[in-house]
Amino acid sequence: MTSTDDQIPLVFRYGLHRVRDAVRVLPQAAWSVESNPALCDGQDYELLLDVERLNIDAASFRQMEEAARATGGDVDAGVRKQILDTVDKRGKMHNPVTGSGGMLLGRVRHIGNKLSPSHHALRPGDRVATLVSLSLTPLQIERILSVNLHAHQVSIIGSAILFDSGCYARLPPTLPESVALSALDVAGAAPQVARLCHDPRASKRVRRVLVLGAGGKSGLLVGAAARKAGAEVVVGIESFAKAASEAAALGIYDRILPADAADALAIADLACADGGEYDLVISCVSAPRAEMAAILCCRQGGTIYFFSMATSFTAAALGAEGVSRDIDMLIGNGYCLGHADETLQLLQEHTPLRELFVRRYG
Amino acid sequence: MTSTDDQIPLVFRYGLHRVRDAVRVLPQAAWSVESNPALCDGQDYELLLDVERLNIDAASFRQMEEAARATGGDVDAGVRKQILDTVDKRGKMHNPVTGSGGMLLGRVRHIGNKLSPSHHALRPGDRVATLVSLSLTPLQIERILSVNLHAHQVSIIGSAILFDSGCYARLPPTLPESVALSALDVAGAAPQVARLCHDPRASKRVRRVLVLGAGGKSGLLVGAAARKAGAEVVVGIESFAKAASEAAALGIYDRILPADAADALAIADLACADGGEYDLVISCVSAPRAEMAAILCCRQGGTIYFFSMATSFTAAALGAEGVSRDIDMLIGNGYCLGHADETLQLLQEHTPLRELFVRRYG
Repeated sequence: MTSTDDQIPLVFRYGLHRVRDAVRVLPQAAWSVESNPALCDGQDYELLLDVERLNIDAASFRQMEEAARATGGDVDAGVRKQILDTVDKRGKMHNPVTGSGGMLLGRVRHIGNKLSPSHHALRPGDRVATLVSLSLTPLQIERILSVNLHAHQVSIIGSAILFDSGCYARLPPTLPESVALSALDVAGAAPQVARLCHDPRASKRVRRVLVLGAGGKSGLLVGAAARKAGAEVVVGIESFAKAASEAAALGIYDRILPADAADALAIADLACADGGEYDLVISCVSAPRAEMAAILCCRQGGTIYFFSMATSFTAAALGAEGVSRDIDMLIGNGYCLGHADETLQLLQEHTPLRELFVRRYG
Repeated sequence: MTSTDDQIPLVFRYGLHRVRDAVRVLPQAAWSVESNPALCDGQDYELLLDVERLNIDAASFRQMEEAARATGGDVDAGVRKQILDTVDKRGKMHNPVTGSGGMLLGRVRHIGNKLSPSHHALRPGDRVATLVSLSLTPLQIERILSVNLHAHQVSIIGSAILFDSGCYARLPPTLPESVALSALDVAGAAPQVARLCHDPRASKRVRRVLVLGAGGKSGLLVGAAARKAGAEVVVGIESFAKAASEAAALGIYDRILPADAADALAIADLACADGGEYDLVISCVSAPRAEMAAILCCRQGGTIYFFSMATSFTAAALGAEGVSRDIDMLIGNGYCLGHADETLQLLQEHTPLRELFVRRYG
């Protein structure tokens, strides 16, 4: 018994009935899942969606862009091809290189009659954004309509399946839906950073916060969350000039420093020169090898929150040990209670941030 | 400035001067390092050791054993060959598949005169165990003398280099040195679990603890640490029958359940049937795909401590999101303040545990 919804068999609750290639493995761990809505028992336990748009995880999208560029072809076409290939082979948009997914926007087509009561508030036709990863969401793509390279969003015609353990949010009427989708894709980040900033333990007091990848979507949200939570100093690192200047204009950061997060020593020199190390370091860098920069900038006894899917577990674990740094390192959980509402509210409250999101992702 | 030892240039402090193939990358992140003591500037900032024994990380050793078995050859010879190959190519025992290392036992040959004052308590001839990973320790192997498949230890003649940021411990006179080495290899685990059990926040109160991989080295130590810290219920999961019965005899666990941690659903059924989910789940499973078992067994608001180097960052992050579990997930840091002394003391205090360590690793 691992749930209060005791009436639902765990196999259906977590979607193991759709796992194609292995037994007793959950859909995220499985290589592939059956994505044809009709080809499976257990439809009574499923929520079926007509999909309109995918919001691809930043690490995944960046990897596909780079792979497309490496072949010398058109980036748009290369990304399309990789998405179709992956979904065709795996039955889900689960990037085989980065291991990450993203989320989607769709319209409810069918609500299984054995789903938990909470799901029965939905009606066919309701528009929802999923809050579980595409890496475990059975997905069929009939056609890709367009790719937005800037927003990492892909308009499609297709269908997807949510399990009873899944999670979704209705879109707010006050934001363009592509903007809401962008924010909800990283909904776990800001609320968890707010919690870390409010840790009541004296040893965990958070005065100084450093954000790596400060100008990206999750970076901006966690920076705003840290500021709202009362952090005294919030410094950002951002290697892309445009993102850096956009972030600098928001009033969130005390300063934005231009540097490549893979260059740990340069970051430590730059970021710690004025005031020393940080109580809380948040890594939102969508490229590999940012672990050591985070570690070197974190004070003894401080905390690192690794939100980026490009984070390597061993690089973090062994990296901290290698420089004898006694710090707490948290894996960025995509879910926490109330995360969707809290993230959307952050955008509502912060006009310059919201306006930047609308310009970028609208 | 990232250190109180301001007089030591960061390049030497962290060992970047020995990185062979890249610039401005730390030794752990580098593909290879220069391991010949004579072939590098910066020897004044280095501690040179004559190496007697390697203690290979469990995930790494297991991977090499399985690779050796897969070729159908002798396991002992296969492991030797892989160790020599890796050290030859990378200049460090940094398993290219698992990304993990281990630690070593050696005798001080030379103490660089520009090292921080703390290192000058050492004398040539002192025997020390390193407390930084082999994945960042320049290592030359002249000869492998023997492989202990059971203890994951390898007797060698060779040399290694420690940097100023490195850490080591003298061996206690009261324990066989191979036993002390085994315990020190996972020195970070037990002290950090003790801290988690003592978290003063009401929402983080730890009454029920689950240990995955409960019969292994780190599993036994964290089980004992949780018990000592006052956990009311400590349950273990262990798939190997011998390790399970040995663990069951120690008086640490309330019960040991036999199951494969890759089978998340079976574990959730078994472990949570009597008393529900756990406040703290610790994963010490040296094989991949144990993340979901840990997640499904952790209560909302609880904590998972991932100590195993076989943990996948994305599987944990997306797995928790995928089942909407609001939990804190910590990356097992190999270092924390006082970890060596605290771990050795745990062994000293717990006679049955110490005796098992002596039987197994002595």
